[in-house]
Amino acid sequence: IPSQEILGFEKGASERGAGRKTRGSIPRQLGSASPLSRSVCTCRVINAEKSEFNEDQAACCQISVRRREPGLEEDQEWLILCSTQFLTGYYWALFDGHGGPEAAIIASDYLHYCIKQKLEEVAGAVAEARPPMHLSGRCVCDSDPQFVEEKHIHAEDVVVGALENAFQECLQLSARSQEAESNTLVHIALQTRLNPQDEVIGQEMEATNQAGGCTALAALYFQGKLYVANAGDSRAILVLKDTTVPMSSEFTPETERQRLQHLAFLFPKLLDGEFTRFEFPRRLKGDDVGQKVLYRDYFMEGWGYKLVEKADLKYPLVHGHGKQARLLGTLSVSRGLGDHQLKVIDTNIEVKPFLSCIPKVEVFDFALHDIKEDDVLIMATDGLWDVLCNEEVAHMARSFLADNRTDPQRFSELAKSLACRARGKKRGHQWMLDDSQEASYDDISVFVIPLHNRVEDC
Amino acid sequence: IPSQEILGFEKGASERGAGRKTRGSIPRQLGSASPLSRSVCTCRVINAEKSEFNEDQAACCQISVRRREPGLEEDQEWLILCSTQFLTGYYWALFDGHGGPEAAIIASDYLHYCIKQKLEEVAGAVAEARPPMHLSGRCVCDSDPQFVEEKHIHAEDVVVGALENAFQECLQLSARSQEAESNTLVHIALQTRLNPQDEVIGQEMEATNQAGGCTALAALYFQGKLYVANAGDSRAILVLKDTTVPMSSEFTPETERQRLQHLAFLFPKLLDGEFTRFEFPRRLKGDDVGQKVLYRDYFMEGWGYKLVEKADLKYPLVHGHGKQARLLGTLSVSRGLGDHQLKVIDTNIEVKPFLSCIPKVEVFDFALHDIKEDDVLIMATDGLWDVLCNEEVAHMARSFLADNRTDPQRFSELAKSLACRARGKKRGHQWMLDDSQEASYDDISVFVIPLHNRVEDC
Repeated sequence: IPSQEILGFEKGASERGAGRKTRGSIPRQLGSASPLSRSVCTCRVINAEKSEFNEDQAACCQISVRRREPGLEEDQEWLILCSTQFLTGYYWALFDGHGGPEAAIIASDYLHYCIKQKLEEVAGAVAEARPPMHLSGRCVCDSDPQFVEEKHIHAEDVVVGALENAFQECLQLSARSQEAESNTLVHIALQTRLNPQDEVIGQEMEATNQAGGCTALAALYFQGKLYVANAGDSRAILVLKDTTVPMSSEFTPETERQRLQHLAFLFPKLLDGEFTRFEFPRRLKGDDVGQKVLYRDYFMEGWGYKLVEKADLKYPLVHGHGKQARLLGTLSVSRGLGDHQLKVIDTNIEVKPFLSCIPKVEVFDFALHDIKEDDVLIMATDGLWDVLCNEEVAHMARSFLADNRTDPQRFSELAKSLACRARGKKRGHQWMLDDSQEASYDDISVFVIPLHNRVEDC
Repeated sequence: IPSQEILGFEKGASERGAGRKTRGSIPRQLGSASPLSRSVCTCRVINAEKSEFNEDQAACCQISVRRREPGLEEDQEWLILCSTQFLTGYYWALFDGHGGPEAAIIASDYLHYCIKQKLEEVAGAVAEARPPMHLSGRCVCDSDPQFVEEKHIHAEDVVVGALENAFQECLQLSARSQEAESNTLVHIALQTRLNPQDEVIGQEMEATNQAGGCTALAALYFQGKLYVANAGDSRAILVLKDTTVPMSSEFTPETERQRLQHLAFLFPKLLDGEFTRFEFPRRLKGDDVGQKVLYRDYFMEGWGYKLVEKADLKYPLVHGHGKQARLLGTLSVSRGLGDHQLKVIDTNIEVKPFLSCIPKVEVFDFALHDIKEDDVLIMATDGLWDVLCNEEVAHMARSFLADNRTDPQRFSELAKSLACRARGKKRGHQWMLDDSQEASYDDISVFVIPLHNRVEDC
């Protein structure tokens, strides 16, 4: 892994670092002996009218996983010392904060720590092609290897499990203070089940009232495979010579409508009589009562017609379209970390029960592909993807890298160029794209990670 | 639609109709004036050692949807009479019963009725390219057409919604008697929410204690499009000249593990202390306690290692692999109709809360494809797909139809040939496939529906 680049932009000021930098907006690198630390990592943060601080955060580091010999019990520490080896992984992540940058900062400080911990817990298994039934390697039942084979369990499934568990653990940002806040027993019981309490990680998370939350997009290169875990609306794509491979899906109130509506159907109290779980093409009004209008319930991908009652005039659980879509009129994403204290304005309705921290993990096996010199992984927050589609980004990447083959900074320059393109140019009071479309007013962060000449030992 | 063919097999007796026919095993045709009724419909039922009765059921019919002029209120019946037109659809469905054929018989009698009813309710909208916001056609808000357009709502979405609602309504088989059976308040409350009570349809459904259930796979040709709605483990594929298009996905305890585990996580009482929601590669035993073994929870697609406690020795909610996979040790499917009374043997644990009747609907637009003479839709219950994969079936279909182009019965013969192939031949006490693999011991039903020369007015 020769280098990786990130650019973080906020709108409004000049391009060259004049803005107010928030803590953590320069991706922190851990593990100074890693190839990553030799690479150029640039991060420019530019302030905008939109928000005082850039709420995007980024992190990248090497993750060293201490490996234990299978068969060793946990108390045989002296044996472990003799047989320790390290597996090396590389990690990049983007966090898009809302309600302030705090959750994104905490997540960018801790998610890689959670991942490292979860990988170490299963390190004995991920080094095997077929993970053993028992982590100890002990065989309780002769046909155990056969059971594992029948379930098609491979080492990569254990890495995926570690990533899923790491997000779950990292979710616990400020989980303790939430308990005191919960206003009814029902809500406490439900919150407990929807977001299991776990050990709060690190002093920073214990801190206090973290009102904000963040999305999380994390890429891990480990044992010859790329894992991309996503909870939120950031996106990662692989731009290869002849093809573009999406490595994530977005989780928004629109894409998760059915999950959200189903929860409201199972626990109507969560809406406290203030919202309707039904979706309508627009907010209904008095004149619609008694009419049959288009609607969708939790079990429908299609549309039906519903006879409108007064209760249907309430604000919808999921409302709006595209970038305007909101959960409970409040949030534009449906997965991520944090938000434990978030309530719908002027109500006691908690948003957290509807949020999920479960990432979807995609895996790309480099052994099955012939990676070319200009092949890259591009990760970016929604600020980029709101105005550029996958194919536009892929086209820009291919032509930019081909035109600048001798420039050692070309990956960094590509990241910058992508962010600048989405940011547009100021014309009067508006930021415009080249084709006179309105530009992105959101924070924009971009990683461009070259895939050729990967370190082979990780 | 010139013809469609169905073959239903049970194992064990000779091939030619010697078996015990259950009611409804010959697909019933409604609407005698339809092109369907002119077609040859063969159904052979052959008994097997496996079960006394064939639990598969089939139905096909023409569905005439009375169309009302948009703008007419429901009480203007005399106007409707003047302006009535009919939209014609064609319907084929397979139902695979368990715990007896009763639920499959009821579903095969009523699902098309529910679909017709739901289509009639929205008939004014499905005839328009863009369904109106208000079914009446009245425009309450000037920008209503724009809202509908922004949501990308098309006529086909309203047909999909009608199919989804029809399954929901048909679910209510014997729903009333269930209420008396529920053993705790919690369960009643939950059941009510998980399976909304609705009007019980028809006298036959009111009948009594319907213990059994069934899967449902329904195809509808309507307004130039093919809709396939599936709840269960039957399957439909389109075999076109150059490509095979899957038109359904299977819903089994394995494919729906995460949904089932999540429900058990939210409502642990549903397991009544008798089951564990965790998945392990095999049933755990005493020797595993204290060890870390491979497991999955509801939020994991990957695998982790869990320190085994005594509670983990309970029987798993989802257990077994492939055809052996079972929900609560009881059912091999996770979606379908019926099963309101089903309890785990020797317990008070109800299976119904875990079951879903929500179909997944796939749409195929004939206007976008050049349909060739031998192109067919093949629908079959799991008895066929357990031993033949999509490509084997597609290959057999293409070569059989090419070799028998002059035979007017060739679609019927293909259905028979496919069922015979999956049924295998008796060698000693075993039924074997040609390649010495064990044949299907399940009931086998196959529809082969030619797609060329479709009736253009439906």
